[in-house]
Amino acid sequence: MKLWDKGFSTDEKIDHFTVGNDRELDLLLAKYDVIASKAHAKMLGKVGLIKDEEAKLLVKELDIIAKSIEKGTFTIEDSFEDMHSKIEFLLTEKLGDTGKKIHSARSRNDQVLVAMHLYLKDELTEIKAMVKSLFDLLLQLAEKHQKILLPGYTHLQIAMPSSFGLWFSAYAESLIDDLYFVNAAYKVADQNPLGSAAGYGSSFPIDRSFTTQEMGFETMKYNVVAAQMSRGKVEKAAAFGMANIAATLSKMAMDICLYMSQNFDFISFPDELTTGSSIMPHKKNPDVFELIRAKCNKIQAIPNQLTLVTNNLPSGYHRDLQLVKEIIVPAVQDMKACLEILTFSLKEIRVNGGILEDHKYDYLFSVDTLNEMVKNGMPFRDAYKTMGKAIENGNFKPKRDISHTHEGSLGNLCLKEIRAKMDNLP
Amino acid sequence: MKLWDKGFSTDEKIDHFTVGNDRELDLLLAKYDVIASKAHAKMLGKVGLIKDEEAKLLVKELDIIAKSIEKGTFTIEDSFEDMHSKIEFLLTEKLGDTGKKIHSARSRNDQVLVAMHLYLKDELTEIKAMVKSLFDLLLQLAEKHQKILLPGYTHLQIAMPSSFGLWFSAYAESLIDDLYFVNAAYKVADQNPLGSAAGYGSSFPIDRSFTTQEMGFETMKYNVVAAQMSRGKVEKAAAFGMANIAATLSKMAMDICLYMSQNFDFISFPDELTTGSSIMPHKKNPDVFELIRAKCNKIQAIPNQLTLVTNNLPSGYHRDLQLVKEIIVPAVQDMKACLEILTFSLKEIRVNGGILEDHKYDYLFSVDTLNEMVKNGMPFRDAYKTMGKAIENGNFKPKRDISHTHEGSLGNLCLKEIRAKMDNLP
Amino acid sequence: MKLWDKGFSTDEKIDHFTVGNDRELDLLLAKYDVIASKAHAKMLGKVGLIKDEEAKLLVKELDIIAKSIEKGTFTIEDSFEDMHSKIEFLLTEKLGDTGKKIHSARSRNDQVLVAMHLYLKDELTEIKAMVKSLFDLLLQLAEKHQKILLPGYTHLQIAMPSSFGLWFSAYAESLIDDLYFVNAAYKVADQNPLGSAAGYGSSFPIDRSFTTQEMGFETMKYNVVAAQMSRGKVEKAAAFGMANIAATLSKMAMDICLYMSQNFDFISFPDELTTGSSIMPHKKNPDVFELIRAKCNKIQAIPNQLTLVTNNLPSGYHRDLQLVKEIIVPAVQDMKACLEILTFSLKEIRVNGGILEDHKYDYLFSVDTLNEMVKNGMPFRDAYKTMGKAIENGNFKPKRDISHTHEGSLGNLCLKEIRAKMDNLP
Amino acid sequence: MKLWDKGFSTDEKIDHFTVGNDRELDLLLAKYDVIASKAHAKMLGKVGLIKDEEAKLLVKELDIIAKSIEKGTFTIEDSFEDMHSKIEFLLTEKLGDTGKKIHSARSRNDQVLVAMHLYLKDELTEIKAMVKSLFDLLLQLAEKHQKILLPGYTHLQIAMPSSFGLWFSAYAESLIDDLYFVNAAYKVADQNPLGSAAGYGSSFPIDRSFTTQEMGFETMKYNVVAAQMSRGKVEKAAAFGMANIAATLSKMAMDICLYMSQNFDFISFPDELTTGSSIMPHKKNPDVFELIRAKCNKIQAIPNQLTLVTNNLPSGYHRDLQLVKEIIVPAVQDMKACLEILTFSLKEIRVNGGILEDHKYDYLFSVDTLNEMVKNGMPFRDAYKTMGKAIENGNFKPKRDISHTHEGSLGNLCLKEIRAKMDNLP
Repeated sequence: MKLWDKGFSTDEKIDHFTVGNDRELDLLLAKYDVIASKAHAKMLGKVGLIKDEEAKLLVKELDIIAKSIEKGTFTIEDSFEDMHSKIEFLLTEKLGDTGKKIHSARSRNDQVLVAMHLYLKDELTEIKAMVKSLFDLLLQLAEKHQKILLPGYTHLQIAMPSSFGLWFSAYAESLIDDLYFVNAAYKVADQNPLGSAAGYGSSFPIDRSFTTQEMGFETMKYNVVAAQMSRGKVEKAAAFGMANIAATLSKMAMDICLYMSQNFDFISFPDELTTGSSIMPHKKNPDVFELIRAKCNKIQAIPNQLTLVTNNLPSGYHRDLQLVKEIIVPAVQDMKACLEILTFSLKEIRVNGGILEDHKYDYLFSVDTLNEMVKNGMPFRDAYKTMGKAIENGNFKPKRDISHTHEGSLGNLCLKEIRAKMDNLP
Repeated sequence: MKLWDKGFSTDEKIDHFTVGNDRELDLLLAKYDVIASKAHAKMLGKVGLIKDEEAKLLVKELDIIAKSIEKGTFTIEDSFEDMHSKIEFLLTEKLGDTGKKIHSARSRNDQVLVAMHLYLKDELTEIKAMVKSLFDLLLQLAEKHQKILLPGYTHLQIAMPSSFGLWFSAYAESLIDDLYFVNAAYKVADQNPLGSAAGYGSSFPIDRSFTTQEMGFETMKYNVVAAQMSRGKVEKAAAFGMANIAATLSKMAMDICLYMSQNFDFISFPDELTTGSSIMPHKKNPDVFELIRAKCNKIQAIPNQLTLVTNNLPSGYHRDLQLVKEIIVPAVQDMKACLEILTFSLKEIRVNGGILEDHKYDYLFSVDTLNEMVKNGMPFRDAYKTMGKAIENGNFKPKRDISHTHEGSLGNLCLKEIRAKMDNLP
Repeated sequence: MKLWDKGFSTDEKIDHFTVGNDRELDLLLAKYDVIASKAHAKMLGKVGLIKDEEAKLLVKELDIIAKSIEKGTFTIEDSFEDMHSKIEFLLTEKLGDTGKKIHSARSRNDQVLVAMHLYLKDELTEIKAMVKSLFDLLLQLAEKHQKILLPGYTHLQIAMPSSFGLWFSAYAESLIDDLYFVNAAYKVADQNPLGSAAGYGSSFPIDRSFTTQEMGFETMKYNVVAAQMSRGKVEKAAAFGMANIAATLSKMAMDICLYMSQNFDFISFPDELTTGSSIMPHKKNPDVFELIRAKCNKIQAIPNQLTLVTNNLPSGYHRDLQLVKEIIVPAVQDMKACLEILTFSLKEIRVNGGILEDHKYDYLFSVDTLNEMVKNGMPFRDAYKTMGKAIENGNFKPKRDISHTHEGSLGNLCLKEIRAKMDNLP
Repeated sequence: MKLWDKGFSTDEKIDHFTVGNDRELDLLLAKYDVIASKAHAKMLGKVGLIKDEEAKLLVKELDIIAKSIEKGTFTIEDSFEDMHSKIEFLLTEKLGDTGKKIHSARSRNDQVLVAMHLYLKDELTEIKAMVKSLFDLLLQLAEKHQKILLPGYTHLQIAMPSSFGLWFSAYAESLIDDLYFVNAAYKVADQNPLGSAAGYGSSFPIDRSFTTQEMGFETMKYNVVAAQMSRGKVEKAAAFGMANIAATLSKMAMDICLYMSQNFDFISFPDELTTGSSIMPHKKNPDVFELIRAKCNKIQAIPNQLTLVTNNLPSGYHRDLQLVKEIIVPAVQDMKACLEILTFSLKEIRVNGGILEDHKYDYLFSVDTLNEMVKNGMPFRDAYKTMGKAIENGNFKPKRDISHTHEGSLGNLCLKEIRAKMDNLP
């Protein structure tokens, strides 16, 4: 039961090769195909391409299918190529010729395109909410641990005093930047492509403004060729959006793995969040954070993978674009899992106090000492040389009472301002 | 004369290896280092870290340096590590100890960071303007050639009628999506990082709000660790922004190269924009568009290259970040060159009429014919089969008077609406 | 029943996040885990770490498991973390304490590492054989169609005469280059890593030369730290090997899609190998070749994805490396599917004769005409100008009897020499 | 003076855009263009396309040019498009019409192709020699420091005893794997492409076997289309070869940066090899190793960049391929610089003794203790639980006299066998 079946028996090998794991992925997208089909059916009724009665019947049946999807009872058997053919089959089974009419004035490309736009809108919204939860938690942790000092490193060398307040809220503020890109991706997705048909529009007098409003898109992708070119482009937009978040999470996971090492010993997690070793009984490994790092690094590879699959293809649909689905959907799932697990885990973080009491951290305080000299009038370069000699001669004595007061420094974290920046995001 | 010189003679090999081509790149960035230095000097004066008199002298000398940069007479000799040391040298040569004081309460990391933010703000603004010029041209061309038909392809197979109107304006509308990402990148860049010092702030009572306003940043990157983490991140943001534009340009260049082939012969360009061959005298090659395609594909590789250089580095500055400059700056130049040359060249495009008169394009009209049957009441699937048989039996006769009327179709390009979408961009 | 279970209840979420789809992938790798376990058991017996009797019992039970894997009855239930724990469970269920002893002097890292090496050796061998089949077919096709001319393009402009003989055998000869890299990857895989344990070797007096020979490795990765570093590295080696083949296949698929377009119309395939359109009944789309192209382009992204996941990790095992399995195994399956389907499909290719009779291809012959002038003594540059004028003035008349005789030209394909090059491959 | 100049005035903008930095890169490649031109001239004489006398004159003048290249006095002025036109100009200036004849039976594509093959053969040979020098040094260091223990980490957690002997020689043995790929790349490069002309061969009776032997290629790329397809492919082969070395160097640099951190403090370098900070006088930063890491990570991005530029282009030359040169040549220079500087620097490495005396490393010895129990007959899983309890109860006492004896373990480094593996490389 292939839509393009023209009576030829197609070799099973080819069939398996061309369909791939589309059916599995389509279970996640079917919900959106139904939403778009409902809007399309209503529109067909509105412009008179089908009778009002027919439109109502179609919408009613589509609602039933929507419920089966929600309940998880919707299936796509191997005899169907994809969700589209299964849904059309269900409609035709119930409504006969009326069922077939749902396919008037649209094509499967159309359907995949609009379903992907709706899917990504939902997922990007959820990702944004999850990023905000993580952001909130990071600000809470920054506030809670703001007084606890950490060594600040440059070149992995001990450099200057930092604090858990700075560390947690640095990642919070970084996440705001990442959301600019999620918002950009959302804008790309929030344009109705339905009506592009095979990529060149339709001779039917369809009403694209109606479906745009019906599905809740902010606007439409007007040009039908541009709408078709969104295939691959909207997924890449989402991938770019996620890649930035993934970079931030990966970096934080790297810090966590380092800080959990016995050579740093700055933080720890309860046993439920660490794993042991099959031959080293004392180990408490940061597997969770290593996997967040690895999965986020894999996500960072997605934009390039999508680029390679879609690049240098002339305009117009190519079957290559089918592969885009199997790349972006698992990446979205991975992104959400990483956000969920990191937020879940960070709630349990234990922060060690008294870290800087270890003498190896004495030099952390050299810059502040040097700054004191400058405040007392010595030109910087001279103070710098004096300091250098003191250290070389072993005369250096750290002043441990640090006072950083400027905006964003460890004594003045500006958490309120950072939160306001997040709140200002559209 | 290295800032970090502590009296050791460093092997020249190492020196060459670590400095790289920084001096050359710094000539493009020096303008921004001076802007930031002026703001920093004024701030030092304002908060009393230096005398008002000193601040004024520094600003005056920096203005002189700014002029030499503008005139192109500013140089960075091999005896200087980078622009920062050269500028400090000039200030000290003129002002003695006062000159040295410019370096109070900041570090070189600070300086590179803020200069890069200012540089990218300017360049992204310019890129945006260039994209808008290209957009305007594409809409003009769409309007001018809106009636001229083109074959529309799917799978590179002749599919449905398209038009030059659709083709030109499709790329125009696509460019709007790309600007969402340029805007996102701009938001990332438009946050003052100055005051982060080595990445952990300063014990001096610096006034970051003042420098933020002075340099025209919309806000600051508050958290000093987050500010330091912008190194690599802001460049990657710009690279993401450019990668989207590059993908659109590359695709259009691919279409152009195809359409110039004798096997399509849809468009041509004057001889000044094509090149010949050393052994095939009749050739008029689309080198310009091939190079646009190739350069844009190279630009699309930049986000991944930046990711590889910066990924899995724990927080805090690492010298690896120096390499980011030599990746992003040439990419920005390439992006601008591609936008300029494409706009310059497209002005000269010659569009062939009468393309669809060739009989091989007859089947383009099959869908519209099929739609007629459906409009007359036949269920889609039945019309589809009837059509298929007509074609198989050689009975198919194309109706060449096509009438597409819906929004975004070839009879209704919605250029006004597309322009409005662009105008609505912040 | 986790190996690292220390009595703590681990949150299910974490469990799901850390295990991923390992169980599914392990069904493909279990065969190799059993091979390695047998070698390990024999070795333990040989060096006296277990009794001969115990070794024999273990080998006997492992043979039973091997058969169940071969028959497809082996399963990994959700209560087991992976294949290793399931196999150990089966052994212990049957053999009690003796079953547990299989884990002496090795770790799970060890097991995954050696299983992956054995797996990749097998898969690379199969891929090499498939490439050779494709190579043979291409040479046959080159021979069969050697006289049929094709336009040769440069810049997608009509340039010089080519032939199907040249076209088919060009891809054949290119594949030889790709096999150099497959061979390199094989060399990387063909080194026994077993005995590395957790990455630092074992205090047990294990005999690695014995297991090396027993499993048929050419040599061992001696250094135990180097052996551990093979994780990620051996998969990347295989990915590099495949990426080259994928590039060649993708390019050929691109040519095929172009040549099937009505604008070229050089080749065709029977209906079973093309697909139709849901709204354009006349279409015969090259979906199979588009998907070969797309899947091969996805494969070309794998080396970078593996690099991103493994890069900038200091030496020693990290859990990140688990993700490598879920990247490489599907890529190997895709590679084999593409090779199989391309070979299967190319057998059915239909080549059109008389292509060059179309007048648009006249200029193809200009170079040969020019060469005639040169052979008759005119300096090249002068002949070139004369030719150019003839073309400009419309006086050019093509001589269609071309005679290319040098090695590798269309009149002298050197298929025997190309085959010899392939046969010389180790 | 453009080769393809047909009398049209080409806009300077276009000129600059299309030529790029070719002239600069060509200074590195000119040597190889001359070698190929000499072989070509001799061949033209041999087959009678030019007179023997003419061939001799051409060879003589080319030798003069070769010397000027060697001395560094060869230049490519802006009035020349590239090295090919400059060299032809010099020949014609001296020899008149005879000079022009050098261009008989070849094209510029031909010339670039063969020059690049010769260039890469030389550079890959040099890279291989540099890798071997590094390998030798690593084995020397492994031998010298073989008794000095290091903590071995897994998950960045303290795991098991390792040693400097293991650490240095692990990287040595890893480099052998990398050379398999360099050898594969060399095989790809070591095939004469000259004679492909514009990609479809020549109607002249050229003797490709002669030029193959004359230039010292092992074989030729027979098929002229395959030869043309080497453009991009040979550079990608070299990039793959380098990417593996770069991964190994990058990983070692990461270890070095970590081990130089005060939190590890395992190694140090003399002041000439570290750099200071402009505001932290005590810092001794591993800039050299951070830049090795970063440059090697950049090199690892090259295969993907080349893939993006060349991917999905149908067969036949496209101007896109020009960009390949500006990507591969600097990458080769970077690779050599990294190898040189790492070898240069590692000679000065200072290794700290007594590291494991710190009590935080006690648990390193837990596995060996556990193994003792197993050797005494306890099943592994039981010993593992006993050990776990001892550690939990604080009863664990490390036995510091470790004895690892198996092949490749810290007591039996097998340096001789590793060296033999390297020596066996072709």
